[in-house]
Amino acid sequence: VLFESGAGVPIDGSVEAVKRLQSAGLPVRFCTNETTMTRNMLTEKLHRLGFSMKDEEIFPPIPAVCKVLQKRNLRPHLLVHPTAALDFEGIDTLNPNCVVLGDATAEFTYHNLNKAFQALMSMEKPILFSLGMGRYYKEEEELVLDVGPFAKALEFAADVKAEIVGKPSETFFSSVLEDMGVSPENAVMVGDDIVSDVGGAQACGMLGIQVRTGKFRPQDESHPKVKPDSFADNLLAAVDLILQASK
Amino acid sequence: VLFESGAGVPIDGSVEAVKRLQSAGLPVRFCTNETTMTRNMLTEKLHRLGFSMKDEEIFPPIPAVCKVLQKRNLRPHLLVHPTAALDFEGIDTLNPNCVVLGDATAEFTYHNLNKAFQALMSMEKPILFSLGMGRYYKEEEELVLDVGPFAKALEFAADVKAEIVGKPSETFFSSVLEDMGVSPENAVMVGDDIVSDVGGAQACGMLGIQVRTGKFRPQDESHPKVKPDSFADNLLAAVDLILQASK
Repeated sequence: VLFESGAGVPIDGSVEAVKRLQSAGLPVRFCTNETTMTRNMLTEKLHRLGFSMKDEEIFPPIPAVCKVLQKRNLRPHLLVHPTAALDFEGIDTLNPNCVVLGDATAEFTYHNLNKAFQALMSMEKPILFSLGMGRYYKEEEELVLDVGPFAKALEFAADVKAEIVGKPSETFFSSVLEDMGVSPENAVMVGDDIVSDVGGAQACGMLGIQVRTGKFRPQDESHPKVKPDSFADNLLAAVDLILQASK
Repeated sequence: VLFESGAGVPIDGSVEAVKRLQSAGLPVRFCTNETTMTRNMLTEKLHRLGFSMKDEEIFPPIPAVCKVLQKRNLRPHLLVHPTAALDFEGIDTLNPNCVVLGDATAEFTYHNLNKAFQALMSMEKPILFSLGMGRYYKEEEELVLDVGPFAKALEFAADVKAEIVGKPSETFFSSVLEDMGVSPENAVMVGDDIVSDVGGAQACGMLGIQVRTGKFRPQDESHPKVKPDSFADNLLAAVDLILQASK
């Protein structure tokens, strides 16, 4: 929604869109299921692209799952991106009693998936966390598999239901709303993933705007399950809709 | 059920068990979701281990799916084991209009899964065949992922329902029963996979015996969904049950 993930350039108008929201004084949070880099790297990347949000306005899944692990005294077997693994520093991973699955990209090998599966099968009560449940995203000019399909694979193999930390889980969206001090009926989610972003937000009582950038596909206009409250050509158009409505 | 897949040795009593069935004159078929070798290699392997069944008594999924592809004029994008790919000789794979997924083992890389996913996404009406839907099997001393989890991954990613060719699909079991000229209520399935073998056969109206060999796990004795008609320590014990009952 903010930038082309492959090319690493801002999507037309998105820098301006964020500025307009900030100038209007509306609370804004940036929800991401990004787990291939640390939160710090993500903030720095956004700043390099010209955005000016603060660290704490960005909501990725890893800091959230770390809190859950500590609260529930869980030690994860990690199948995550090697870079993102840095954000698990300080988390005990010896004798794992749960599995945490992130967008591991090329680390999704048969060998690594077997290791995660075997870890689940060795647990009396297997616990699987999935950092998001996205189906796919756009990388350069290709659609590539996100973490969701691999979570589904392990769910089926080990006969377990994944706990989702990230979009579209209600727990995740609720924690963001709480952080903003905004009730769902006063919040708008803008996303390019019709199921995870728009559908997830609507399920929590928010409005959902689908942008026609990023992983948007023309078929989304007539999606069998999710009907966005609005479509917008890009974030700037979505922000203009929001600012008009908030007047 | 017949042999330890890792060690490649017959399970105690299984050679004798097959002989007893053959001597009794009962029609027997060997249903397998094996897609890591050709049917020929499978027959030869079984003969080396001391079994004496004929080629046409063995029912693997690849010859079955090839018939379906030809009948429906489909050209597959293949994600299968390199060895098994030989059994697709003569099948047109140019401009694929469906995806066929087998137990590709180490070929289940992020790259290859993305290619299969992209093939599905490029089709107006995506068609996915899964050669079986097993969750896992035992390889040497480890449980490893079978084709099922990867089929689930692609189903979720491309929002498509896989057509299963192999156990536990009713189409597959029915074609075997038809080949034997036996009605389901007169047939017994013996398997080590409680869901795919026993549950699948029961769903078709057959009796299902769970053996305590191969991928059997003690938890199967109290499986929440599938209740085998009988348990047997191994194939020989199962065959003795069947021969007693058939008298």
